[in-house]
Amino acid sequence: MFTNELTNLLKIDYPIIQAPMAGGITTSEFVASVSNNGALGMIGAGYMSPIQLREQIREVKHLTSKNFGVNLFVPNQFEVMENEVEIANSFLSRYLEELNIQGEKITLPNFENAFQSYREQIQVVIEEKVPICSFTFGVPTADVVAQFKLQGIISVGTATTVAEAICIEKIGMDAVVVQGSEAGGHRGNFIRAHEESLIGLMSLIPQVVDFVSIPVIAAGGVMDGRGLTAALCLGAKAIQMGTAFLTCEESGAHPVYKEAIMESAGEETTLTRTFSGKWARGIKNRFTKEMEEHEGIVPTFPIQNALTQSIRKASAKQNNKDFMSLWSGQSAILARVETVEELVQRVMNEARKILR
Amino acid sequence: MFTNELTNLLKIDYPIIQAPMAGGITTSEFVASVSNNGALGMIGAGYMSPIQLREQIREVKHLTSKNFGVNLFVPNQFEVMENEVEIANSFLSRYLEELNIQGEKITLPNFENAFQSYREQIQVVIEEKVPICSFTFGVPTADVVAQFKLQGIISVGTATTVAEAICIEKIGMDAVVVQGSEAGGHRGNFIRAHEESLIGLMSLIPQVVDFVSIPVIAAGGVMDGRGLTAALCLGAKAIQMGTAFLTCEESGAHPVYKEAIMESAGEETTLTRTFSGKWARGIKNRFTKEMEEHEGIVPTFPIQNALTQSIRKASAKQNNKDFMSLWSGQSAILARVETVEELVQRVMNEARKILR
Repeated sequence: MFTNELTNLLKIDYPIIQAPMAGGITTSEFVASVSNNGALGMIGAGYMSPIQLREQIREVKHLTSKNFGVNLFVPNQFEVMENEVEIANSFLSRYLEELNIQGEKITLPNFENAFQSYREQIQVVIEEKVPICSFTFGVPTADVVAQFKLQGIISVGTATTVAEAICIEKIGMDAVVVQGSEAGGHRGNFIRAHEESLIGLMSLIPQVVDFVSIPVIAAGGVMDGRGLTAALCLGAKAIQMGTAFLTCEESGAHPVYKEAIMESAGEETTLTRTFSGKWARGIKNRFTKEMEEHEGIVPTFPIQNALTQSIRKASAKQNNKDFMSLWSGQSAILARVETVEELVQRVMNEARKILR
Repeated sequence: MFTNELTNLLKIDYPIIQAPMAGGITTSEFVASVSNNGALGMIGAGYMSPIQLREQIREVKHLTSKNFGVNLFVPNQFEVMENEVEIANSFLSRYLEELNIQGEKITLPNFENAFQSYREQIQVVIEEKVPICSFTFGVPTADVVAQFKLQGIISVGTATTVAEAICIEKIGMDAVVVQGSEAGGHRGNFIRAHEESLIGLMSLIPQVVDFVSIPVIAAGGVMDGRGLTAALCLGAKAIQMGTAFLTCEESGAHPVYKEAIMESAGEETTLTRTFSGKWARGIKNRFTKEMEEHEGIVPTFPIQNALTQSIRKASAKQNNKDFMSLWSGQSAILARVETVEELVQRVMNEARKILR
């Protein structure tokens, strides 16, 4: 029950993928440790420069001979509106003051640069012969998918609705991650609006399984053997876990971030776009609460992300969770502090027991 | 795997409960047919008068010797605000005109009457010795639960979060339905706000199972054997299905309503409080789309429900889905037209095949 066409394709022992969490969590040691323990380690490369990406790929290769993957953000068209930025900065200035980081220069992103960087990231993936590459926030063009196929690189898309999964299959990708509304971090919707793409996994997995023939990977709220077996019963071929891996000892998440997840028991998560301009699920803190009223007028991704970068960084540096983006799925209450090996073995043992 | 302490307690052959959909869907024939086929039929009595409720209970008893249940709405405090009602009516008047139902007198509800009716419903349940009684929108008082226990009536609560499930267990109820964000119809949250209580079943079931010791029933988006086995893997002891039963031949749902569900493939559902004043999930139609902008200023439940009643009724009478409340879960795309017997047998056969 635990090996199938997808585990064969990805060459992994267990149907478990570590979610490609961006922003420093997926260190080389962490990713390699996941792969060395029979699951699939993934580099969250969304915010990396092509040079950083190449370096990390080479590091991971030194640390594991097993398969691993890279995740890229597909850039969505955006344009900087001076007045929007000004208004957003006026809300943010009090935090700059509180954190003592006034006067830092913010470099605003522009679409041409973002797109150029993405193209170069793809080139790095190809040149470094990365075994698996997944995409979020959209789909790569058909020629990229075709080039990957030619090079033996497995491509994986991210969908939040049936329509998005069909789009991913049509473009020729090898598998699809379905992101349930339970999932932490950024929403991967790219066809429907945010609100309409919040579908629970209990509903989303069987729908997508019925409408596409490529293997489906379930992401969102899965933390243990119960979630793994449930996802398999619903028709998924593997699970992708973020929050469960995030609190592992080896993960590069900030200690304050890990603590916030462990302490969040009983507190519900929130959906916010005030950190980055794109909807994402995380643990409430002062920033999400105070910024909530400005939700509607925040600039789009990645502009707002650039505007809040110094605040998030300084907050982390000062071990202050108030202004950090504490992405988490809806099952934070089930998180544990353990090693990657312990997590993978526990999930598999629980799953075997359930299906015995 | 399919029988357990809950199926024993409820005296049902299969771990399947028909969701107590209110508003004419759960006819006596339908409820009895579900029970006669080895699942648990439930009367959705939320909108019934005590007299209507007693009549239907007696009808069902004539049609089945098996266990069945009744669901009651726990009245939440509310107060009619004249100016709110006036504003709401001003938005609704164009529909009255379009449907040719001007001049109908609307009787506004008041809390004392609603509470009195609820107390009488409970009395009917006790006098008629209904085997099972479930509650939505809150919990009954401890003395009601104790009285039920004394009479051998099994009481079941509805929770959308761990905190609500704990509350239900503490008050002495025998089981808890956990309503995932996937679920159609009214949201059952009664502690947290609507937004915070939208938790997917993949996340909600294991959390609640870890925090309460009473049996957990999974509701939301479950349509087939995949959903049943997944719910059981996650730790639930049974599933409660609404949409799947709604399109059954025996269900009392309006043909136009059934059609709307069957035709909704590919369309996502919406959360709206414009029909009743309480958040509920359903299929989009002209009413939900046009009223969306007034979402924030609509009077609370059941005031708005009273204001829209004649519109919903006339729309149904005219076979016009535009102004009917088309409650549905997120898996409408998986709905089928079949008999209750076919549905129950199909779900069980699929489930057996998955776990074989």
